[in-house]
Amino acid sequence: MKKCRICGREGFVTLRAYRISLCKDCYISFFERQVERSIKKYNIIKEGEKILVALSGGKDSVVLASVLKSLSNTFKFNLQAVFIDLGVKDFSKRSEEICKDVCKKLGIDLHILKLADYGFTIQDVHIKKVCSVCGNARRYILNKFARENGFDVVATGHNADDIVVNFLKNWASGNKAWIEKQLPRTEGMDKIVTRIRPLFLRTGEENRLYTKIKGLPFISEKCPYSKRYKWETIIDEIEDKMPGFTQNVVRNLFTEKHEDKIEYRYCSICGEMTTSDVCQFCRNVARYGKFNHKKL
Amino acid sequence: MKKCRICGREGFVTLRAYRISLCKDCYISFFERQVERSIKKYNIIKEGEKILVALSGGKDSVVLASVLKSLSNTFKFNLQAVFIDLGVKDFSKRSEEICKDVCKKLGIDLHILKLADYGFTIQDVHIKKVCSVCGNARRYILNKFARENGFDVVATGHNADDIVVNFLKNWASGNKAWIEKQLPRTEGMDKIVTRIRPLFLRTGEENRLYTKIKGLPFISEKCPYSKRYKWETIIDEIEDKMPGFTQNVVRNLFTEKHEDKIEYRYCSICGEMTTSDVCQFCRNVARYGKFNHKKL
Repeated sequence: MKKCRICGREGFVTLRAYRISLCKDCYISFFERQVERSIKKYNIIKEGEKILVALSGGKDSVVLASVLKSLSNTFKFNLQAVFIDLGVKDFSKRSEEICKDVCKKLGIDLHILKLADYGFTIQDVHIKKVCSVCGNARRYILNKFARENGFDVVATGHNADDIVVNFLKNWASGNKAWIEKQLPRTEGMDKIVTRIRPLFLRTGEENRLYTKIKGLPFISEKCPYSKRYKWETIIDEIEDKMPGFTQNVVRNLFTEKHEDKIEYRYCSICGEMTTSDVCQFCRNVARYGKFNHKKL
Repeated sequence: MKKCRICGREGFVTLRAYRISLCKDCYISFFERQVERSIKKYNIIKEGEKILVALSGGKDSVVLASVLKSLSNTFKFNLQAVFIDLGVKDFSKRSEEICKDVCKKLGIDLHILKLADYGFTIQDVHIKKVCSVCGNARRYILNKFARENGFDVVATGHNADDIVVNFLKNWASGNKAWIEKQLPRTEGMDKIVTRIRPLFLRTGEENRLYTKIKGLPFISEKCPYSKRYKWETIIDEIEDKMPGFTQNVVRNLFTEKHEDKIEYRYCSICGEMTTSDVCQFCRNVARYGKFNHKKL
């Protein structure tokens, strides 16, 4: 392991996408600074807002609560958390315990809501599309609770991997309007509360490292109903072959790029079309051709 | 194996993306009809055009030559083939033999061109970016030869996998202008000859099947310089998890979709925002809630 790029001590992790190694302490401040920069650049949080962070007990939402707590002085916002008990027996119970533990450690007030109060739980849903029922219930309850309790913003732990998976799935299904729902900040309107996704540029792997170094508990098992995780391995594999892929895709989703129109002219050597004075082929001939250079 | 959907005989292959099984004969006509439909829908070929198909000896270009030959009467075009000897010793030699063999079988005239005539070969290129030098040389020589010999169109064997890989790579690098170069038909201008990609909606797997059933030879080894193939496994894995993914992504690249603006109203039961009369959550409560239905 190389030395820490920032402080020179022994490195703990190498971030291939950034081509740097960092020690534990510097990783935490590097990570939090990255989130802080995203928040500023994309205007994710406005000063004085009252924020409700949606905690599931999974690594991403736990990281979000921890980072937002760290940044709450910088951005002067008020922070509380909410956990929704969806009634997936032991899984929900263990998740709730973790959320209580995390909030106690971080000093954040935690609200606990129950889907059962509406007359059913996720375990009652005996259809294939259980995930869509669950997602709908969480959005509904979160939004209603946030609005009725005077929160300006609901914050969720969506990470860059989630957004790339959604990108691929939605592109394949021809739904190009989905992106509105994945913006770093989606302004509310009427009865819909503003949504923010401060970790949209952090990968799942970066979040995992953060919990590990900070010693934050999270529920490592997957929801027994989830079918989503097959995609995670694909994203990991692409990332392995092309470090930085995930973050680059997400960044380019939210960046308008105006391409200049290409202007063609004629190569001054061969007369074929090119965008510069001498075409690339003639430059290659000059570089590798035996007529000009000695053969390698 | 299920029976052939078309003729009822014993099936030879199941196409998961289409959810059908087909026998050998019906696969060939199904495949060729798909290409024919793409050509019509995307105006890829105009009647009477003189087409130069770029043969490398790989499966995709061999399939392209074969299918175009089959369709040459329907679309009334003139078809010839070209092979460029890039000078990658044994690999280029074996590829050339295959191209000669294929063209003889299909009854297509084959032109053989040599990069060495320009004073260098790919083996002389001792840099990492050898693939970009090779690609540039092929495009240059193809375009020049096609123009100088009166061809209206150069046809290449790019398949849907290629286009998805390019899509992902270019999206990650922020280059959103790349798509112009991957259209089913890119009109020529000035000295640049029109390019067509009639197999842009066919997957590599579909092409492989076509060569297998037709008994067409192709060079199965990869170019010794190629670094591209790591992506193939990723595309295969995504396709495995989501049959039809590759073709759907490509189709949506070339289809403008106008999304209607979403109109919100209030749920007639709970008063929350929704796009229909009763919101999805209230419908789920009605379906699964013990207050209305008996518990499952």
